[in-house]
Amino acid sequence: MCIKSMLRAWTAAVAFAAGAAGPATSARADEGMWLLTNPPLEQLRSKYGFEPSSEWLDHVQKSCVRFSTGGSGSLVSGDGLVMTNHHVASDIIAKISTSEKNLLASGFYAAARDQEIPCPELELNILWTVEDVTDRVNAAVKPGMKPAEANAARERAIAQITSEAQDKSGLLPEVVALYQGGKYHLYSYKRYTDVRLVMAPEQDIASFGGDTDNFEYPRFSLDMCFFRIYGNGQPLRNDHRLRWSDGSRSGDLAIVVGHPGRTSRLNTVEHLRFIRDVELPDRLETLWRAEVKLQGFSARNAEYDRIASEQLGGVANGRKALTGQLAGLLDPANMDHKIAAEKRLREFVDQDPARREQWGDAWDKIARAQQERRSWAPRYRLLNGGLSSELYQHARDIVRLTEELPKPNGDRLREYRESRLESLYNSLYSPAPIHPPLEIANVEWSLSLLAERLGADDPLVQTALAGKSPRARAEELVNGSTLADPAARRALVEGGASAVAASKDPMIRLAAAMDPAAREIRKRYEDQVEAVERENYAKIAAAKFALEGESTYPDATFTLRMTFGPIEGYEQDGQMLDPYTDFAGLYQRYQDRKGKPGFTLPQRWVEGKDKLDLSTPFNFVSSCDIIGGNSGSPVINTRGEVIGLVFDGNIQSLPGAFIYDGEVNRAVSVDSRAIIESLRKMYGATALVEEILAK
Amino acid sequence: MCIKSMLRAWTAAVAFAAGAAGPATSARADEGMWLLTNPPLEQLRSKYGFEPSSEWLDHVQKSCVRFSTGGSGSLVSGDGLVMTNHHVASDIIAKISTSEKNLLASGFYAAARDQEIPCPELELNILWTVEDVTDRVNAAVKPGMKPAEANAARERAIAQITSEAQDKSGLLPEVVALYQGGKYHLYSYKRYTDVRLVMAPEQDIASFGGDTDNFEYPRFSLDMCFFRIYGNGQPLRNDHRLRWSDGSRSGDLAIVVGHPGRTSRLNTVEHLRFIRDVELPDRLETLWRAEVKLQGFSARNAEYDRIASEQLGGVANGRKALTGQLAGLLDPANMDHKIAAEKRLREFVDQDPARREQWGDAWDKIARAQQERRSWAPRYRLLNGGLSSELYQHARDIVRLTEELPKPNGDRLREYRESRLESLYNSLYSPAPIHPPLEIANVEWSLSLLAERLGADDPLVQTALAGKSPRARAEELVNGSTLADPAARRALVEGGASAVAASKDPMIRLAAAMDPAAREIRKRYEDQVEAVERENYAKIAAAKFALEGESTYPDATFTLRMTFGPIEGYEQDGQMLDPYTDFAGLYQRYQDRKGKPGFTLPQRWVEGKDKLDLSTPFNFVSSCDIIGGNSGSPVINTRGEVIGLVFDGNIQSLPGAFIYDGEVNRAVSVDSRAIIESLRKMYGATALVEEILAK
Repeated sequence: MCIKSMLRAWTAAVAFAAGAAGPATSARADEGMWLLTNPPLEQLRSKYGFEPSSEWLDHVQKSCVRFSTGGSGSLVSGDGLVMTNHHVASDIIAKISTSEKNLLASGFYAAARDQEIPCPELELNILWTVEDVTDRVNAAVKPGMKPAEANAARERAIAQITSEAQDKSGLLPEVVALYQGGKYHLYSYKRYTDVRLVMAPEQDIASFGGDTDNFEYPRFSLDMCFFRIYGNGQPLRNDHRLRWSDGSRSGDLAIVVGHPGRTSRLNTVEHLRFIRDVELPDRLETLWRAEVKLQGFSARNAEYDRIASEQLGGVANGRKALTGQLAGLLDPANMDHKIAAEKRLREFVDQDPARREQWGDAWDKIARAQQERRSWAPRYRLLNGGLSSELYQHARDIVRLTEELPKPNGDRLREYRESRLESLYNSLYSPAPIHPPLEIANVEWSLSLLAERLGADDPLVQTALAGKSPRARAEELVNGSTLADPAARRALVEGGASAVAASKDPMIRLAAAMDPAAREIRKRYEDQVEAVERENYAKIAAAKFALEGESTYPDATFTLRMTFGPIEGYEQDGQMLDPYTDFAGLYQRYQDRKGKPGFTLPQRWVEGKDKLDLSTPFNFVSSCDIIGGNSGSPVINTRGEVIGLVFDGNIQSLPGAFIYDGEVNRAVSVDSRAIIESLRKMYGATALVEEILAK
Repeated sequence: MCIKSMLRAWTAAVAFAAGAAGPATSARADEGMWLLTNPPLEQLRSKYGFEPSSEWLDHVQKSCVRFSTGGSGSLVSGDGLVMTNHHVASDIIAKISTSEKNLLASGFYAAARDQEIPCPELELNILWTVEDVTDRVNAAVKPGMKPAEANAARERAIAQITSEAQDKSGLLPEVVALYQGGKYHLYSYKRYTDVRLVMAPEQDIASFGGDTDNFEYPRFSLDMCFFRIYGNGQPLRNDHRLRWSDGSRSGDLAIVVGHPGRTSRLNTVEHLRFIRDVELPDRLETLWRAEVKLQGFSARNAEYDRIASEQLGGVANGRKALTGQLAGLLDPANMDHKIAAEKRLREFVDQDPARREQWGDAWDKIARAQQERRSWAPRYRLLNGGLSSELYQHARDIVRLTEELPKPNGDRLREYRESRLESLYNSLYSPAPIHPPLEIANVEWSLSLLAERLGADDPLVQTALAGKSPRARAEELVNGSTLADPAARRALVEGGASAVAASKDPMIRLAAAMDPAAREIRKRYEDQVEAVERENYAKIAAAKFALEGESTYPDATFTLRMTFGPIEGYEQDGQMLDPYTDFAGLYQRYQDRKGKPGFTLPQRWVEGKDKLDLSTPFNFVSSCDIIGGNSGSPVINTRGEVIGLVFDGNIQSLPGAFIYDGEVNRAVSVDSRAIIESLRKMYGATALVEEILAK
């Protein structure tokens, strides 16, 4: 359930829209993705007798890691050892694999440090400092500015703030809109790009159960993976790291610290209706198509299966996640809850003339923006996402980057600002292989999608197809492009706008031809939707603070949060589930389902059964409130020790994008004891175990 | 590539729109799905030296069979033995299977006649007489009638003609609009409903290669099946039957006689644009969704896999077929060809004032109808198709039937006219099992689809969901309905409209609540599209006849046609393919691909390899011009002897729905020698072989 980077290319159109302010009702159960700068101390103390010190919070923060592939992780040794999920890293593992040496199939363990494998593209960030810059951002907005002007002014202020911060600290700065404009925080990260693979189990055990068991429980997956951060060619010597626990028991308090990607819990009802009726159906239709297309591609031969497996896995995962989100919004009980909460808040505002004057129009303004975008939202997503093709995405980055770089920092598209460039180059010049057959298949269906949605006679479609069928055009674009070579990409960027203008590369020409329309509709989105949302969600946030106080959490923004709750089972189909599974259950499930897709066990595991203590706890559930992006987060106890590794939510957690139900919403984790038991007995990873367990 | 009956439920919205008149250009190669009443005698004589007599044509016609499951077949003995494809019959085989005795998995052979298994629902038709009723139908239209009035008048005339024909002959009558209104023919069929399964191979060999090899070549599938027609409890004694050949050779003329379902080759350009930009994208989106949903359902356990396999196979087949059709329309070369042909015909019409006066406005009128329906076509398809649920489809038939029966025959919805009732009852009272878990899954996603397309706040969606989530509502509807019991269905029909009005069955109540909106949009389609098309395609047909003469063929209408062409290979990916494969190639493909989905061989075939003559021709291609519905058609030589059994078109044939390309369009058949070799050596079906080979 990480936010797969490959999904981003064509879902990028949906910006991470952070929500409004505070929970819609008083927090139910252990709801909440809390800022570490503002944890619910009273709730933790009264309910769990736990009072984290500021040292505890600072230590945990600096032991946590954000993955550029869209997940979370943690430092588990003083030598830069990082633990995350296999599925957070699997696209990286695919990129360092070949048809001869497929590390997804075989797994990998570097018994010595010189065997650790460098990973192109991968970037890890550790949150180092947090600063409230709300006043400075808002000061940029002058009275009388229209929403679009105000939005541009805020963006320029943010560019200025990040630019100054970077010059001053050398850290990677990021201004985050919390409560979507209620607050702005400057987050500064330590940034690492020399990251090497230490240990990965076989994908068959890491994602045992495949799509069938994804988001389900009981569960039996060893979804773990280890990397090491290097600096100047040496392993990182880090002061902060999580130590290992002796394990957990049912009822223990579990604390998850990680980077939940996106929630929309505080959206207005009309905004949720837009997501329900337009955004999610539109995204799902693209996912269904992609899943079927990729399955057909993969079935052709073993090599195609290998090169498409990551993309297919990401698509299937996204499809299951969004299906659950949509089901949540189509459940009238959830929607009624949202309607009632909104009604309460609006009544509070309307009761008082001053409040009404200040905030009263916010809901209607957001509603109007959502209504108006219904007609053009699918076109926006289509053009803003671009073709589902690595070559096309590179081409577009090159075209845009060379156009943006000469502009003042604050006037650029935000992804090309100074603070983002290092990460962009890291990915743009990556030596990871690009596979022409898969590219052709992806470009073909992307072009067909464009024609189906806009109509084949649309001028933009005619530009894209250039008088050819989608298949013929895809072959021309992919076979004719030099952009699979990172040196060719670098040469164009370094040659600047004139080199791009002179380039005959068909992918560059296509990206350049499509870009004016894509920029136009993006501007429409920013001016007519984003600007209106920022301004009016800020009002709603203020109203919420006035009604409920500030002890509340903002919607998820792929930044560091903590969430907590007991290890506890739940009722499903009339049956009370135990919170733990064990290795014995794994082998039982394998017996029941073997031969079915997703239920293959690696030979090592088939043959090595007797080596294991089968009663070892394998996976467990807790009521921690997580969402996509949290994958790879450590689960710790109150002493800050690792008791598990989050890798999934249960199927009942999927509506959590909009509403949390503590009765059945559960986070699924690998138990710390299963990690050690399998490293020792199955992989003979003695040195790794010693490093992890070192005090 | 048959027209799966299960696909019908939710693709029914798209009526079989027969095309206009004559091929768009002079027939290329062996293009043409010819009426047996008007075969291209001169072409057959001059090109192949073949002059079929009227006796030859009559004999072949009466040896051919139409399957109610949407395919074709032929009589191959004097005792009512019928040969067709396994995939034409597989939904019937699924219906007579249970989890304990799964005939799709095990295959079946009745060594004695008393072991043959009766098949519920299955109806076979043999075309007996053909009469031109064009003048009588057109006489119903009075000067000054608007298109909708004229359409209704024609429908009443057709109802009258079929009613009289049924009373007079006792045969099953059907008035077919050829050249979509250029001509009307009355077809009368012998109708058989006591049909029993004689022999079916295992599905694994019948559809070897699965979705991967579907519509591909080279191919290795034993896609055959045998039934026997009974009358009064005894095997049919039929005078007409096809005899078996000694086999064929490359270059031989192959003749296919069967029931191609639907082509749109003669549609106007603007009509094709509607299909390209609206209809096909809309249908494909439903198919992708269904495929992913059904895969997820099937993966849950072996029994779910069994009960969903037919629907999933049909969906995957439809998805691949429509993907090919869409690719054909997105190829500008094809579209340019259509545009040029239309331009030529319009110039011919415009050259002469009388012709312009008579026919000149036809293209623009059709164009306007297609343009106008763009906005409501998806809603039409959604409501007219109804939920993808056997219970819902039964419920709707019951609601409508009891409402229509009291009306005069000519005023009814056409599917409830007297001539259709026997077939309707045969299917409505079928004892075939309905599986609640699959029904719940199908109803759930159908309800979600409705909400996604119309928006969850649409009044119709609120009616459908009744304040519940799609999942909860699906459970309520399926678990609360008695309609899985054929006796309950019969009681409601016999109780009439008052019994239906009083029924508390939730599926009946839902169908009744949805019906007014469904009828309203259907009427809109009939009045604003169908009526306009009928009237104006008739004009275009007349213009075509005037320009090119009458020696042309109408678009396919799931009625009997003959098509012909040599057995010949074709160039694919730069390689010239041999027209024949053999059993040796089957085992080679199995070695290459085993373990992959669709590439399992039955144990009998794995172990029995040495029994076979591996050089036996297995599948072959000919340039015969076929399409979905032709599946199960016999391939005969000029002596009328069976040389093969059509089961597929190659991937290059899929644009054949709109345009035929003789260079690469090929029909794929099982060779007659492979049928005998496998019946003898693999299945020990001695009696069956003797019956087939009897002179």
